[in-house]
Amino acid sequence: MSALPLGATIGILGGGQLGRMLALAASRLGVKSHIYCPDPASPAFDVTPLKTVAAYEDEEALRRFAASVDVVTYEFENVPAETARIIAGIVPLRPGAEALAVSQDRLAEKQFISGVGIPVAPFCKVESLADLDAAIAALGLPAVLKTTRLGYDGKGQRTIHKPEDAAEAFAALSPKPLVLEAFIPFEQEISVVVARGLDGALAAFDPAENLHRHHILKTSTVPAAIPASLAAEAVRTAGAIATALDYVGVMGVEFFVAPGTPGGLIVNEIAPRVHNSGHWTEAVCVTDQFEQHIRAILGWPLGDPMRLADVVMENLVGDEIAAIPDSLGPGMRPHAYGKAESRLGRKMGHINRIIRRTGAK
Amino acid sequence: MSALPLGATIGILGGGQLGRMLALAASRLGVKSHIYCPDPASPAFDVTPLKTVAAYEDEEALRRFAASVDVVTYEFENVPAETARIIAGIVPLRPGAEALAVSQDRLAEKQFISGVGIPVAPFCKVESLADLDAAIAALGLPAVLKTTRLGYDGKGQRTIHKPEDAAEAFAALSPKPLVLEAFIPFEQEISVVVARGLDGALAAFDPAENLHRHHILKTSTVPAAIPASLAAEAVRTAGAIATALDYVGVMGVEFFVAPGTPGGLIVNEIAPRVHNSGHWTEAVCVTDQFEQHIRAILGWPLGDPMRLADVVMENLVGDEIAAIPDSLGPGMRPHAYGKAESRLGRKMGHINRIIRRTGAK
Repeated sequence: MSALPLGATIGILGGGQLGRMLALAASRLGVKSHIYCPDPASPAFDVTPLKTVAAYEDEEALRRFAASVDVVTYEFENVPAETARIIAGIVPLRPGAEALAVSQDRLAEKQFISGVGIPVAPFCKVESLADLDAAIAALGLPAVLKTTRLGYDGKGQRTIHKPEDAAEAFAALSPKPLVLEAFIPFEQEISVVVARGLDGALAAFDPAENLHRHHILKTSTVPAAIPASLAAEAVRTAGAIATALDYVGVMGVEFFVAPGTPGGLIVNEIAPRVHNSGHWTEAVCVTDQFEQHIRAILGWPLGDPMRLADVVMENLVGDEIAAIPDSLGPGMRPHAYGKAESRLGRKMGHINRIIRRTGAK
Repeated sequence: MSALPLGATIGILGGGQLGRMLALAASRLGVKSHIYCPDPASPAFDVTPLKTVAAYEDEEALRRFAASVDVVTYEFENVPAETARIIAGIVPLRPGAEALAVSQDRLAEKQFISGVGIPVAPFCKVESLADLDAAIAALGLPAVLKTTRLGYDGKGQRTIHKPEDAAEAFAALSPKPLVLEAFIPFEQEISVVVARGLDGALAAFDPAENLHRHHILKTSTVPAAIPASLAAEAVRTAGAIATALDYVGVMGVEFFVAPGTPGGLIVNEIAPRVHNSGHWTEAVCVTDQFEQHIRAILGWPLGDPMRLADVVMENLVGDEIAAIPDSLGPGMRPHAYGKAESRLGRKMGHINRIIRRTGAK
């Protein structure tokens, strides 16, 4: 349980922008990064000389990788269970296997979270059309049918408005394991990025208010326009989930602000990694989410998440990356991910617009 | 004169912490870095896969390097003139050759700065002991005898208190070209990091107040405890020097606050590169000095240097690096340079202590 030293090497599964930003943060802490990714054009390969290009199922490559680093983390929750098992047999994997197992299966996730007494949208497991009809009867409509695994950015889900839509939605998504979730009429979506250290200490960033466009995060605004009591409850809830998972690292927790529900907050989903809605932290916090994650997995004390200014983070999707450097103005802090090819719907970078606080000199 | 695109590659001469931090900033802008350094253990080699290990006099290696990148910059002012000439014949070198020529020769530097009407300490060129005696007669004592080239961190200089010290000081430093400078009784040392874009635009960070220990920068505090009028004059002066040099990039300008002099400010020296006394910018500015330098040499618009909080930057020298991660507290933001070996007097990292402003929420 001791802390890894300066000069340690972390292994990162996944070579996208999150892996890249983790590696950049590790460098600021005097720590090396080794990126493991099957895609030879991974943007994270540009920020460290240490890389492995191999499949996540390549046991030989995984063993070599794990043996060459001091700790392994990941930038995505869909790390295969067998990959995680191989690595964890050689070197610490942080966050651990339970966080992966829970977060990569939507049904397991909802069972886990509700199991620790935290509100989620009412849900039913769906294995057949008969299950779906029963679930609709139990939860009412509208409701959302989702694959339990590998859904992201709105992929792998169908909203069912009328009973006669059920068969088509089921046909479109089966035979994958499915879950039906009650539709929660929510006013806002917020998220909390929380960190938990190896010693169990918690540190959360302020909640962000998120807007999506075409099912992709468009902006995160901090502070969120919510009462302080609700912000505190969201932070408390995120910490409780991290503690229940015996989590080590940074975790994103998405909430619906749903005034019709008892506590006014519903957990939508968790992500066992740094989170797009936490990219604002790099611009205005003493410690950003990437450094915080690296500190946690190294076994170091967590950093200070204090926020110095208000901020709006905007994702640059597809051709929007042209905003860097063309149209930057006062308070704008750009981040480009170094992806060679801009594709429709591909996250290419982001801009933090920093708003100096009223009252500051 | 057009701007280089996202995906461009910059070449950096020098693989120390400044080159490393420049490469990290370039990565945040979606730009690749190729590090050129003779030392195979250079810390900057850990933050990019593109490197050349070769001498600065290796013409073949220099040509290959220059041909593989879109622009070249450097982390140290003592780039040999011939090295600069070879590179500039192939690809833009920014800042340019004049900035190098002026800043790597203390006599040329003082002549240039005073030539544009900016106060420096009175000085005399010294080529012989007779010159030194005449210089002492002209400038009075105490005075400081300095080598004109390759001095740093207090190396290459002797303070002369009494006429009879002259011969020993001359013997210790000659036959190198020398300059005698009048000793300026100063109250504070401040510095301004200023950027000048390819379009001639200027952007300066707030002046920092610097304290040294054993001739090595120990802390930079921002804001400096000086009147606003003096801060404005320092910023204006730094910009005037950059403009006079037709400079492109970030430049550090060190000043003595000397109440006995006409304007109250004396330029001590300039550094044609990112500057140790600007490391605080990474913690509290919208754009930090490293990103600002990269933007300038890419021909991009300069970023916003707005400061969000007060800050004290402390260098970690030698074994002081152990402060990371052991003794970090609230408001502390660490940066370790990834140097394998901690030696006496070697800069190993720094910590920014961020102080939230009074009046902010």
